[in-house]
Amino acid sequence: MRYLSQVSLAEAVGCVRSTFPVPERNERLPLLRSVGRVTAVPVYAPYAVPPVHTASMDGIAVKSAETVGASDQRPVLLLHAVRVNTGNAVPGGYDAVILIEDVWTDGKEYRIRKPAGPMQHIRPAGEDIRAGGMALPAGHRIRPFDIGALATYGITEVRVRSVRAALIPTGSELISPGTPPKPGQVVESNTVMTAAFLEERGVDCVRYPITPDEPDLIRAAIEKAVGECDLVIVSAGSSAGTRDYTAAVIDELGEVLVHGIAIKPGKPAIIGSIAEKPVLGLPGYPLSAQTILRSVIAPLLDEWGFRGREEVRLPVVLARTLTSDIGFDEFVLHTVGRIGDRYVATPQSRGAGVQMASVRANAVVLVPAQTEGFDAGETVEVSLTADMASVEATLLLTGSHDPALDECANLAMARGIRAVSSNVGNRGGILAIRRDICHAAPLHLPGGGGDVGGTVAAALRGLPLAVVTVAGMPIGLVSREGAGDRNGLRFINRQRGSEMRAFIDTYLAGKDGEPAGMNVVEQEAQSHLAIAAAVRDGAADTGITSLAAASSCGLAFEQVGTERYVLVIREEHLDEPRVAALVQTVMSEEFTAALNRIGCYDTAATGTIVHVPAEKNDRMEKRS
Amino acid sequence: MRYLSQVSLAEAVGCVRSTFPVPERNERLPLLRSVGRVTAVPVYAPYAVPPVHTASMDGIAVKSAETVGASDQRPVLLLHAVRVNTGNAVPGGYDAVILIEDVWTDGKEYRIRKPAGPMQHIRPAGEDIRAGGMALPAGHRIRPFDIGALATYGITEVRVRSVRAALIPTGSELISPGTPPKPGQVVESNTVMTAAFLEERGVDCVRYPITPDEPDLIRAAIEKAVGECDLVIVSAGSSAGTRDYTAAVIDELGEVLVHGIAIKPGKPAIIGSIAEKPVLGLPGYPLSAQTILRSVIAPLLDEWGFRGREEVRLPVVLARTLTSDIGFDEFVLHTVGRIGDRYVATPQSRGAGVQMASVRANAVVLVPAQTEGFDAGETVEVSLTADMASVEATLLLTGSHDPALDECANLAMARGIRAVSSNVGNRGGILAIRRDICHAAPLHLPGGGGDVGGTVAAALRGLPLAVVTVAGMPIGLVSREGAGDRNGLRFINRQRGSEMRAFIDTYLAGKDGEPAGMNVVEQEAQSHLAIAAAVRDGAADTGITSLAAASSCGLAFEQVGTERYVLVIREEHLDEPRVAALVQTVMSEEFTAALNRIGCYDTAATGTIVHVPAEKNDRMEKRS
Repeated sequence: MRYLSQVSLAEAVGCVRSTFPVPERNERLPLLRSVGRVTAVPVYAPYAVPPVHTASMDGIAVKSAETVGASDQRPVLLLHAVRVNTGNAVPGGYDAVILIEDVWTDGKEYRIRKPAGPMQHIRPAGEDIRAGGMALPAGHRIRPFDIGALATYGITEVRVRSVRAALIPTGSELISPGTPPKPGQVVESNTVMTAAFLEERGVDCVRYPITPDEPDLIRAAIEKAVGECDLVIVSAGSSAGTRDYTAAVIDELGEVLVHGIAIKPGKPAIIGSIAEKPVLGLPGYPLSAQTILRSVIAPLLDEWGFRGREEVRLPVVLARTLTSDIGFDEFVLHTVGRIGDRYVATPQSRGAGVQMASVRANAVVLVPAQTEGFDAGETVEVSLTADMASVEATLLLTGSHDPALDECANLAMARGIRAVSSNVGNRGGILAIRRDICHAAPLHLPGGGGDVGGTVAAALRGLPLAVVTVAGMPIGLVSREGAGDRNGLRFINRQRGSEMRAFIDTYLAGKDGEPAGMNVVEQEAQSHLAIAAAVRDGAADTGITSLAAASSCGLAFEQVGTERYVLVIREEHLDEPRVAALVQTVMSEEFTAALNRIGCYDTAATGTIVHVPAEKNDRMEKRS
Repeated sequence: MRYLSQVSLAEAVGCVRSTFPVPERNERLPLLRSVGRVTAVPVYAPYAVPPVHTASMDGIAVKSAETVGASDQRPVLLLHAVRVNTGNAVPGGYDAVILIEDVWTDGKEYRIRKPAGPMQHIRPAGEDIRAGGMALPAGHRIRPFDIGALATYGITEVRVRSVRAALIPTGSELISPGTPPKPGQVVESNTVMTAAFLEERGVDCVRYPITPDEPDLIRAAIEKAVGECDLVIVSAGSSAGTRDYTAAVIDELGEVLVHGIAIKPGKPAIIGSIAEKPVLGLPGYPLSAQTILRSVIAPLLDEWGFRGREEVRLPVVLARTLTSDIGFDEFVLHTVGRIGDRYVATPQSRGAGVQMASVRANAVVLVPAQTEGFDAGETVEVSLTADMASVEATLLLTGSHDPALDECANLAMARGIRAVSSNVGNRGGILAIRRDICHAAPLHLPGGGGDVGGTVAAALRGLPLAVVTVAGMPIGLVSREGAGDRNGLRFINRQRGSEMRAFIDTYLAGKDGEPAGMNVVEQEAQSHLAIAAAVRDGAADTGITSLAAASSCGLAFEQVGTERYVLVIREEHLDEPRVAALVQTVMSEEFTAALNRIGCYDTAATGTIVHVPAEKNDRMEKRS
């Protein structure tokens, strides 16, 4: 037993592939339910197809020997002839069909002027398959069109290989999906996700009840699972903490082959063997669990013939520098979109608990163990997690996120585009435009004017831009209800260098340079929501943020200004059909209606476009 | 209405894509059943995840403001501190976690020597998703890992787009699968295959009863289907024959948009519209129906968001010249295998009724309408019909087929190789070895010796070869039981130029040059089975064929010699792991046992290898 002595991913995969023989289990399935499954035994045709010689044209069946010598000069009167249509059986002793238009007949006698070759216009008996012929060998993965052949051959059920997987969720903090978690509770979703992943490959999954972190209960669950199933997956308890009993229990019942794999996320995984069956420990964090499913459990299932969708790989340009620890194979989720003729990959959050990262991602970048990372602009090959059509439909929106963007993305789907936002703040958005690694940068710009703000304009000088207004947003002072007057209130500011900080500083300066009766706290917040959350949670008593953020945290709001939420787009991309569809979405009445339903947005300027030429930051044109 | 005025495939696809709007239908599905489906409405998270600030390490929750200034010189005694473990909620008003190892405590008081930054070691509330945040937009295709995120967010059901397809089999000759067809009957498998194809894409299929070729009944079935479903597929009756009523009925109830598409196979297809719903006529021949499913119906479903597996394309070298009529997009099934570093594609039968062709194939070659075909050796891009792993596992066996090869292929699957045979006779096999476009050529060689036969050796002179004996096979004179003595019997010979013909001629010469009391008929047969079938069917009274063929046709058999069934392999390929696995399969005891179970084979020499050097045709070495 190697306890947290990490092995490499390659070693772990080699271990699962070579250790566990294909389970003997198989089952009979109705034909239509067998698609994607692998035959356990060969399938033989019980009869020949076609069962007899069959006419492949309309005409008369003849004995070819009687037609020898027929010509225009010497027509032959046939001794034997039978009228047949396409698909009719050719009677015994007949071995050719002559097209009806090549026959002279009075309805009783048939004359021909050309000899018929043997088997002419006949589908011979057994042309498709002979009686007893092998239609499928054992080990064949059944495709939809194979189903047609089997149905034709009279097969209505197929015996296929089968695997039953036990999924055991462990953890005293877990609750079943569907109940809102109380503080400290966690919804048990790992076995749900695992079931979805395995069932797509034709594995039958049995989800066991949630087992608390008690060694006796975990032991009982694993023993039962090993008795009932071919593969046991224990979710969590796989680290080396005081409440992590999975490895100890496996070691007691069988053998721990691997504890700890040098991958990120997903390091605390376990490969164990009990009664020659694989017992695998999945890390608790969802994205760590995903890595183990994709990188360790999938190769085992491939080996067993339970394959998933074909992996599609694509060379992409990295939007951002990717650093990684030497010694770990690290998998980083990215969203890939095509900008011009390059595929650009934008990283998603690397937090092991941020499942929206995998929802937004359509690709995984592997930083191999011997590599420290990749530089922005490098080309690497990614493995796609969505189909190519979805990648082609993807627009990268990189900048400052806002719920308005979700509504826009939702409506844009109906126009065939998939707008995926990457929340890196205004600064990140401006940089992405400058480096041409996004389709549009959503930015929060304080002030009500129609042009881009001063700092943004300065940062992007030299680039012809289009600025599309998404919405106006009231911003103001927030406070908890009943938080008293302003004397002694703790004020939380935005981070230095941000457009909102400049706005707030100007606002405070207008109030004589110091917030009247307010103390500015040292902590600075990175976003509207962070300001509102800090006030809600009591880390501060007031701050300046958006009405939307204030509402979402149940705070009192006193408007002091307006902010515009805009999409900044390089002018050169504006006519690209997908970018044009995004802009049309923002201009659409449905989008305005959606924003008005949410409230908190001023939609008066929604959909207006300002074109900013390369050397000028003034408004040039306005249309809506 | 255009009646059999063909449109191009591109026009047909454009027609289905642009004519039929996405059906409005949707349904709520339990989360786990929604994989692969497309959301009909956006999915919002009902609560934030995590719901509150959560410790991401074990330690103490603190108020970061109280930690300012702490250092080794000036430790700070904390006024507020709460012990927390990873995953615990951080109490309101606390905004940082300090690792337990960085804390000095007597159990009551906590001292620290380093300040804590705000939000240090905290997963902020809503880090993954905020309450009310959009988890999925409408139009999102749900993947297994999306399921995990939705479960975490408390989602247990999802509303997804749904399509209901009516599948109507028509034809008076049809019977349901499972009953052996009588002569002239055809098993109705097209709607079974269509259901398998559509259900893989998430379409709900309703298979209607078999409808005879009567316009009133077809009309009633289509009217009912249009009322109940979003898409109607009528199988057969789509040609322009006297019993083909589908187009007329569609035209009566709605509009025929296309009748006849310039593709092969699959020309007699119909695209109709009734009540704005697509009503599609599928040709009756299974391989024609497959073309329409793949080339016309799949693009419609793609457009509707019901996508299938990702198409994988691969450049391949064509093993044989492919001719095609100008004006038709022709799809030809091929089996692709890798020989060295080239992928070689061997054509399968082009008969529209030969479904085994699609079972054996793993790729489709399109010969575009403006092209007359491709030459052998040309490189073209194919679309795969199986996954890449299956292509990599494929060995091309090109030559003379025998049921023994099916048993070999079946056992070889357990060794990870997929041996696919292409039945082109001895001549074709010899040519394939010469041109290095197969892994092995199965040949039937009359005579019992260990070396390759004279004509084969001559054809392959200069190539170092290995000849693996699969089995010996008794050959002899066959006759129907009670067919009388030989006087006046009609004898059927094999085709000129074949090894069997040479053997038979020699045999007959030994009987004084003329079959004693037998008349040789003009017709010649191309295979053992064709000889046996001709005798069974009365086209001849006797001939020389194999015991296996005689048995399968229930004929009396009198042995006159032996034939060897061998695999001829280029010596250079013999050590290729997959080829070696094939040879090991032939050498295995299981294979001998399988042949003995079938009977009719002499397995004494099964698995022996003879190595034939380049300039010599003698036996060199023998091992078993």
